[in-house]
Amino acid sequence: MSVTAAQGFVASGVSAGIRPSGKPDVALVRSLVPAVGAAMWTQNRVQAAPVVVSRANLAVAQPQAVVVNAGVANAATGAAGEQDAREIAAGVAAHLGLAAEEVVILSTGVIGPRLPMAQLRAGIATAVGALSADGGASAAEAILTTDAGPKTAVATGQGFVVGGMGKGAGMIHPRLATMLAILTTDYPLEAGETGETGELLRPAVEASFNRISVDGDCSTNDAVVLLANGASRVERDAASDARFAEALHEVCASLARQIVADGEGATVVLEIDVAGAASDDEARAIALRVATSPLVKTAAFGRDPNWGRVLAAAGSAPWNGGFARLDPERLRVSFDGTDVFAAGAPTGAVPELGGAACRIELELGLGAGAAGYLASDLSVDYVRLNAEYTT
Amino acid sequence: MSVTAAQGFVASGVSAGIRPSGKPDVALVRSLVPAVGAAMWTQNRVQAAPVVVSRANLAVAQPQAVVVNAGVANAATGAAGEQDAREIAAGVAAHLGLAAEEVVILSTGVIGPRLPMAQLRAGIATAVGALSADGGASAAEAILTTDAGPKTAVATGQGFVVGGMGKGAGMIHPRLATMLAILTTDYPLEAGETGETGELLRPAVEASFNRISVDGDCSTNDAVVLLANGASRVERDAASDARFAEALHEVCASLARQIVADGEGATVVLEIDVAGAASDDEARAIALRVATSPLVKTAAFGRDPNWGRVLAAAGSAPWNGGFARLDPERLRVSFDGTDVFAAGAPTGAVPELGGAACRIELELGLGAGAAGYLASDLSVDYVRLNAEYTT
Repeated sequence: MSVTAAQGFVASGVSAGIRPSGKPDVALVRSLVPAVGAAMWTQNRVQAAPVVVSRANLAVAQPQAVVVNAGVANAATGAAGEQDAREIAAGVAAHLGLAAEEVVILSTGVIGPRLPMAQLRAGIATAVGALSADGGASAAEAILTTDAGPKTAVATGQGFVVGGMGKGAGMIHPRLATMLAILTTDYPLEAGETGETGELLRPAVEASFNRISVDGDCSTNDAVVLLANGASRVERDAASDARFAEALHEVCASLARQIVADGEGATVVLEIDVAGAASDDEARAIALRVATSPLVKTAAFGRDPNWGRVLAAAGSAPWNGGFARLDPERLRVSFDGTDVFAAGAPTGAVPELGGAACRIELELGLGAGAAGYLASDLSVDYVRLNAEYTT
Repeated sequence: MSVTAAQGFVASGVSAGIRPSGKPDVALVRSLVPAVGAAMWTQNRVQAAPVVVSRANLAVAQPQAVVVNAGVANAATGAAGEQDAREIAAGVAAHLGLAAEEVVILSTGVIGPRLPMAQLRAGIATAVGALSADGGASAAEAILTTDAGPKTAVATGQGFVVGGMGKGAGMIHPRLATMLAILTTDYPLEAGETGETGELLRPAVEASFNRISVDGDCSTNDAVVLLANGASRVERDAASDARFAEALHEVCASLARQIVADGEGATVVLEIDVAGAASDDEARAIALRVATSPLVKTAAFGRDPNWGRVLAAAGSAPWNGGFARLDPERLRVSFDGTDVFAAGAPTGAVPELGGAACRIELELGLGAGAAGYLASDLSVDYVRLNAEYTT
């Protein structure tokens, strides 16, 4: 189950009363044996206090526990907010017999308010007492905000497991938006392999969480954290390393897709695939532009195979100070496998759209550049939810 | 009245039956005396047939007439669409005793379908017969699609007039989105002053139409066209040139604001002003990012002074391969003049938002870079309109 699927991890999720709904809002994950870890953080210029503090912690120690609160993001809270974040890390560390720097702190929720520290302290104590090897499901519930439901994923190798939980429904965008993911594995990794510049986490994140978009907004709190404790005691070789990397990709990809499918108000997942671009960068720019076009996304909500809007978006993808290269005469566009535009003119075909997913493919005929994005549609409920969500 | 406010121009607007609603859909504007002209076009890589043909025409002749049809964009229609566009230009020219190259053709509406040429030919004949010095209002009606109402503006100088009409409600974005504007003046200009690289039109467009955003989408058909016929016979001097440039700015700014206020489903105009940025480019990137953030725009729809979303957007403004520089410790954000965030922390103030406009100011404290944008909010009606609008 999610972060406790791998051996040697315990977790819990409890209600501390931070979320007005009374739903679980404090999650704790701990490795029972010494772990190494890595994290990737939002690139937003405005970084929440927990991001600032956790990044500093990871620079000097290997993470052994992760604490998450939902409801209040502790972002744009100044020096006082950073002090709150440090106090949380110290509190969790004291409960667990760790150094404060061995604790990663994540927060998600409303930007601006201070954390309700009294409630949070009590919640942390409760969460520590509730830690269990069956706690993965509870933890996955306790990191949610506007999410409709929990997001968990597990992949297995020969004798080892990669598990994870994710959170995110709005402000979802490449470069990590209000999106949290905590990944655990009992595969044995060395500290050097998991640093922020390590080769293991980044490619999995690039191919998954950095290729999804709900609303094009990028949050102040995003984080992906990986803990690896080696509790599986498997012998590593090139094959097992490859399978581990693959399993990590699988878990990240599954969580990323769950996040898009649960995008605020989402009714359909758009699978946007660009191929034949002049470069991978341009393919990515075009896929991103289509994935974030309000007109493409509202058409998808209306189940309208509106390839005209896809063309207009694809033709205006910001790249290198101008627009990514695209020649309508060479472009082929299909919806769910049916070509709707080819050789500079419409084919006349009108695909029926109806499923929970819609694949939009663009073949540019210019080169070998390719990229994909997953995006949610833009629905009436998205607007309602975000117009009414409290400041 | 709009394009006929200046001397020596006639116009008309008629119903050719292209729009299913039966509303007027063919507009014609003509200068009665030889004019010079200029145009700026969409930078989308996918350019509609009328854009391709009109651009070619302007390269070899000065424009004497502009014909616009609404309902079908004649975009992504291939070589056949370009042939249709050329035929329209030739048809109008034959009616008016002009060369085909002296006619500018604009189309707006659905991407993909061919133009209904039989209806359009008949409509053009009717429009020619209806040309009159009082036709500005009719013409302004006949270029609309999803617009709630016509957009016209007039500014006067000593003995001369600049008038204009505009169109646009969705796909409105910098770099000219589905937005048309036709400007006429009886101020005497030379051909050399009005070319696409001329100094007169570009700055007025940059400061107005290129600083508005309804939905961040950029169309295949955008155009701003200026005709100057000198019919006022005023004597030019430095002062009158300055006043002309100012009047041109005024008309463009008025039309641009009318377009935003009439953005699809719009309920409020967001006036986003960024100052104190490290550079003008970064100020513009930040203003644009805030202007296109779905979360900022849905909050505005809910009349929620959600500065947290403004911060998150401002901190993630794409610039130079990364994000535009911003230091939360130096940032000040206000809504309608009330500071909500300063010196790295919330002020605690909660402004009441209620009017037809909302001013969001960001002072970055980093340099002298400044930029402004006008944006509409993102409403339930925007989604409904665009989910239901026909392919």
